[in-house]
Amino acid sequence: MSITGKNYIGFSLSSQNDYTFQSYVPALNIKLPETFHKATPEEVSRTMELAAKAFDEYSLIPAKQRADFLIAITEEIIALGDILLERANLETGLPLARLQGERARTINQLTQFAELIREGSWIEASIDTAIPDRTPVPKSDLRKMLIPIGPVIVFGSSNFPFAYSAAGVDTGPALAAGNPVIVKAHAAHPGVSDLTAQAIIKAAKRTGMPDGVFSMLYDDGFEVGAALVKHPFSKAVGFTGSFKGGMALVKMAQERDEPIPVYAEMGSVNPVVILPDYLKNNAVQLAKTLAGSVTLGAGQFCTNPGLLFVTETEGLTVFEENYKNEILNIPSATMLTSGICKNFYKLRDEVFAQENVTELAISETTSDQQNQSQATIARVTGKDFIANPKLHEEVFGPFSLLIVCKNTDELLDAVSHLQGQLTASLMAEAQEAVKYPALLQKLSQISGRFIMNGVPTGVEVCPSMHHGGPFPAASNSFFTSVGRHSILRFVRPQTFQDWPDVLLPVELKNSNPLGIFRLVNNETTTREI
Amino acid sequence: MSITGKNYIGFSLSSQNDYTFQSYVPALNIKLPETFHKATPEEVSRTMELAAKAFDEYSLIPAKQRADFLIAITEEIIALGDILLERANLETGLPLARLQGERARTINQLTQFAELIREGSWIEASIDTAIPDRTPVPKSDLRKMLIPIGPVIVFGSSNFPFAYSAAGVDTGPALAAGNPVIVKAHAAHPGVSDLTAQAIIKAAKRTGMPDGVFSMLYDDGFEVGAALVKHPFSKAVGFTGSFKGGMALVKMAQERDEPIPVYAEMGSVNPVVILPDYLKNNAVQLAKTLAGSVTLGAGQFCTNPGLLFVTETEGLTVFEENYKNEILNIPSATMLTSGICKNFYKLRDEVFAQENVTELAISETTSDQQNQSQATIARVTGKDFIANPKLHEEVFGPFSLLIVCKNTDELLDAVSHLQGQLTASLMAEAQEAVKYPALLQKLSQISGRFIMNGVPTGVEVCPSMHHGGPFPAASNSFFTSVGRHSILRFVRPQTFQDWPDVLLPVELKNSNPLGIFRLVNNETTTREI
Repeated sequence: MSITGKNYIGFSLSSQNDYTFQSYVPALNIKLPETFHKATPEEVSRTMELAAKAFDEYSLIPAKQRADFLIAITEEIIALGDILLERANLETGLPLARLQGERARTINQLTQFAELIREGSWIEASIDTAIPDRTPVPKSDLRKMLIPIGPVIVFGSSNFPFAYSAAGVDTGPALAAGNPVIVKAHAAHPGVSDLTAQAIIKAAKRTGMPDGVFSMLYDDGFEVGAALVKHPFSKAVGFTGSFKGGMALVKMAQERDEPIPVYAEMGSVNPVVILPDYLKNNAVQLAKTLAGSVTLGAGQFCTNPGLLFVTETEGLTVFEENYKNEILNIPSATMLTSGICKNFYKLRDEVFAQENVTELAISETTSDQQNQSQATIARVTGKDFIANPKLHEEVFGPFSLLIVCKNTDELLDAVSHLQGQLTASLMAEAQEAVKYPALLQKLSQISGRFIMNGVPTGVEVCPSMHHGGPFPAASNSFFTSVGRHSILRFVRPQTFQDWPDVLLPVELKNSNPLGIFRLVNNETTTREI
Repeated sequence: MSITGKNYIGFSLSSQNDYTFQSYVPALNIKLPETFHKATPEEVSRTMELAAKAFDEYSLIPAKQRADFLIAITEEIIALGDILLERANLETGLPLARLQGERARTINQLTQFAELIREGSWIEASIDTAIPDRTPVPKSDLRKMLIPIGPVIVFGSSNFPFAYSAAGVDTGPALAAGNPVIVKAHAAHPGVSDLTAQAIIKAAKRTGMPDGVFSMLYDDGFEVGAALVKHPFSKAVGFTGSFKGGMALVKMAQERDEPIPVYAEMGSVNPVVILPDYLKNNAVQLAKTLAGSVTLGAGQFCTNPGLLFVTETEGLTVFEENYKNEILNIPSATMLTSGICKNFYKLRDEVFAQENVTELAISETTSDQQNQSQATIARVTGKDFIANPKLHEEVFGPFSLLIVCKNTDELLDAVSHLQGQLTASLMAEAQEAVKYPALLQKLSQISGRFIMNGVPTGVEVCPSMHHGGPFPAASNSFFTSVGRHSILRFVRPQTFQDWPDVLLPVELKNSNPLGIFRLVNNETTTREI
C-alpha cells in the first residue's frame, strides 16, 4: 500500500484542489516527497452528504457486524506492517519502540470496543412494562436505550499519530456506536493518516459497510476543519489538542443554527503534590521517578506533570540536588514539529522571565538533529506562584515548575488557585494523607483522575479510566476520551413508548435475544420478560 | 407557615432590596397582597459563597443521610397542606385536581431519588485491579465513580409550580447527587416557591444538612438569574422553558471564563403522524383522543402535540368533522399568566396569517374569567407546510396544526423538514408501520421519545423515560430532565488511581460495604474483591 495524498470521500479518492502540502521530518527539518491535496468546499459537502446517507444505513447494521468491522480495521493496520511505523517515525520524530507500543494500544482500543458492542450491555437498556389498569391513569410500556447520533468529526492530534488520530480514541467509539466518521487528518502526519485511512476503508469494504461510513480530508490550515464542524450534517466533534484550538471549535459549534457538542480534551498542568514526610523518606527515588515522567516522549503528553508542589522541609535539599542531576542526564529528543519546538522554548522563556522564577536544571542538547528538546525545571516560591496566574499555564514539552511552599497551609492555598486538571497526584506516606482532608478535597474537586503516590503519565485503557476533567482540562467534565465510557460522547438515549415487540430494536425485545444486562422494572437482569 | 417574601440565603432570610414585586391571579388579573424582594447583587454573591462552602461539607455527607433529607422534604411539602395547593391555584390558574396530581408527582420524584441513592449503584462504580507484574509496564489499580460537581442553579418553570420548580426535577437530582441548589423562583408563582423553600429548609435543618445546601432568590426580571449563571461558583444550570430563554442562558454560560453546562429543556411541537389505514379505522376515537391531548392543561405542556400529519385518505373527512366537533366542545381554561395568554393569541394569529392556512376549529370562550384560552386547530397542506418554516414553530397553548399531505411520500418529506423534538408519535395499524421504514427512521432520528399509537402528553416518571431530545428540544440530547438518569446532569466521573483502601470512598472499597453493583475487572457484580 502506498500513500495517495488524496482525500478519502467514502470509498472514492478525490483531489479537486491544486493546492497541496507536504509533511516534514522534524529530526532533519526536511520535507517528505508525498503531496497531500487540501480538500475543497465542494469535497467537504460531498463528504458530509455521503456520511449522512451512510448513517441511515450504518445505524441499522447489527452490532456484531460493526464489531467485525472494528476487528478488520485492527487486522488491516497490522497488515500495513513496518511501512506505517517507519512513516510515523519520520513524520513525528517519535522512536520506533514508542510507536510500536502506541500501535498496540490503538489495536487494543479498537478491540475493546469490538468486545463491548459484541457483548451489548453498554447500550443501557431499560424497560418499564405497562400497567394498563393503574389508576388514575394507565401506565404505558416504556423502553429506553442508547442510539447513535449521526456523522462525527474527528480531529487527529499531533502527539499520538495512531492512538488519537485516524483510527484512535474518537474514531473507535464513534464507529462502534453506529456513527459515520469524518477525520480531518493532522497536517503534521498526513502520511500516517493516509495509510491508516486506507486500512479502515479496506476493512469497511471487506465487512460490507456502506460507502461513507469513513472519510478523511486533508488541510494544512483551519478551513477544512471549520467547514466540517459548521456543516449541518455534523452531529458531534472529537478533539484532543491545545486549549486555543479546542475552544475555537467549541465556539464554532456553539454558533451553529443547531449547536453540536465538541468533546475537546485540552490538556492540563497535572499538579503533583508532595507532602513533607514522603519527601523526606523518598527524596532520591522521587527525583528519579519525576524526571522520567516529565521527560517521557519529550514531555509531549497531556498528562505531563507540569507543576510540582513541595514544602520547605527536611528532604528538600536532597530532592532538589537529585532532581537536578536526573534532569541534567536526560538526553535531548526530537519534538513533534518545529512549531511545537519553537513554542516550547518560547513558553519556557516566558516562565523564566516572570519575577523570582529561577532555574533548577536545564539539560544539554545531546544530538545534532533538529528540533531538540531540553529537559527543564524552573523553581519559584509558593507565594510568587499564587500571585502570578501566568505560572499556572501549560508549557507543552519536557518542562516542570517546582513550587516551594513555606508550609502545608501555603501549599493548600496554592493548590486552591488551580483550574481544572486531567490529573492530580498526591505523594504521601500512609498516615500522612489523612492529616490533610482539605487538601485531598481540593485536589479531588479539580481533577478527573486522582493518583496516589504515582505519576500522571501512562493512561491505562480500561473501563475505570477517566481521561478528562473539569474545565479547562476538557470541554465537558462528564465525558472521557479513553476507555469504554468514551462511547457516551457519540450516542443519546431514546425511549420507545408502547411499541409492539416485533418493531422494537433487538436490545429491547421481551425475549432479550442478545442476553444483555437490562434494568427491568428497576431490577438489573439478563432475563427475558 | 406563611409567605415571607424574603430571599432564602441558606437558613437566613434576606431582604436588602427596596424593590419588590407581587404575583397575579391570572383568572382575575388582580395582584396578590404579598410582596417579594428582588435579590441584590450582594445577596447573589453571599448566596453563592455560602453554597460553595456548603458544597465542601454536603458532598461528604453519606448518601443515606442525603436520602433522609429528600424524604424530609416530601414530608414537609405534604405538611404544608392545602395552603400550598390553594396558593398554586391562585398563582397559576391550574385546577386543584391537577395540582394535587402534580404535588404527588413531585413527592414521587423526590422519593425515587431517595431510593436511588439509598441503594447506591447509580454512581456507576468501576474497578480495575492492579497487575503489578504485567510487562512491559505494571498496571495500576484504577477505580471510578460519579461525584457531585458543585452548586447548581435551578430556574423554576411557569407551567409546573411543583414538579419543575423549587423542589422539582432539577432540585431533586442535584441534591441527591450531593450538590447545593440555588433556585431562581419563577416570578409567576413566587408564593408557591416561598412555601416550598421553607419546607426544604425545614427539612435540611431537621436532617442536619449544612447551611447553604439550599437557597432561593427572587426576581421579576432577568438580572438575578443572569448573575447566578455568571457567578464563578456556579457549576451547572437546570432550566425548563422557552427556546429563547434557554438559549440566552446557554450563551451566557458559554461566555464565562469557565463555561458551565446549561441543561435546558426548551419544548417542541411533538409531531403526531397518522398513517392511512389507522386513520380510516380509528377516525372517531382518534379525534377524541387528540382533542383531549392538545387541550390538556390549556395546552401548556412541552409535550403538547402541535403538529398532526395526515394524508388525503378515506377516513380524513370523518376525522376532520369529528376533530372539529371535539375541539368546539372544549371549555376555555385560564392560562398561566397574561403574558403567556397574549403570546398564545399572537402566535396563533401569526400562523393564520400565513399563506393557505385555514381554520378547522376554534372553541368559544366559556368563562367570564380572565386570560382564557380557546382551543384552536389550523389546517394546511403538506406542500405549504414544507415551504414555510414559520409553521414548524411552537405555539405554546391549546393549538395544533393539521397538515394534510397528498400521500405518504409527501408526508415523509414534510417530516424530514422537522427539527429535533421531545417526542414523535406514530399512529399505525399493526401491519402498516413496517411498510414505512424510512418514516420510522426519520421520526426516530428527530425524537427523544418515540410513541406508538399514543399521544405525547403524560410524562411517566420512571427509569425508562427520556425527557429531552435532539436540539432544539434540549440543549444536550444526551441528558434527560425526568427519571433517574436526570442525575447525570449534576455529576462527573472521577478515577482514583492506586489509592489505599482506607482512603477510598465507601463505594469503591474492596469489601463493597454498600453491596452495590460494580463493574469489577469487566464483570458486573455485587461481590467484594
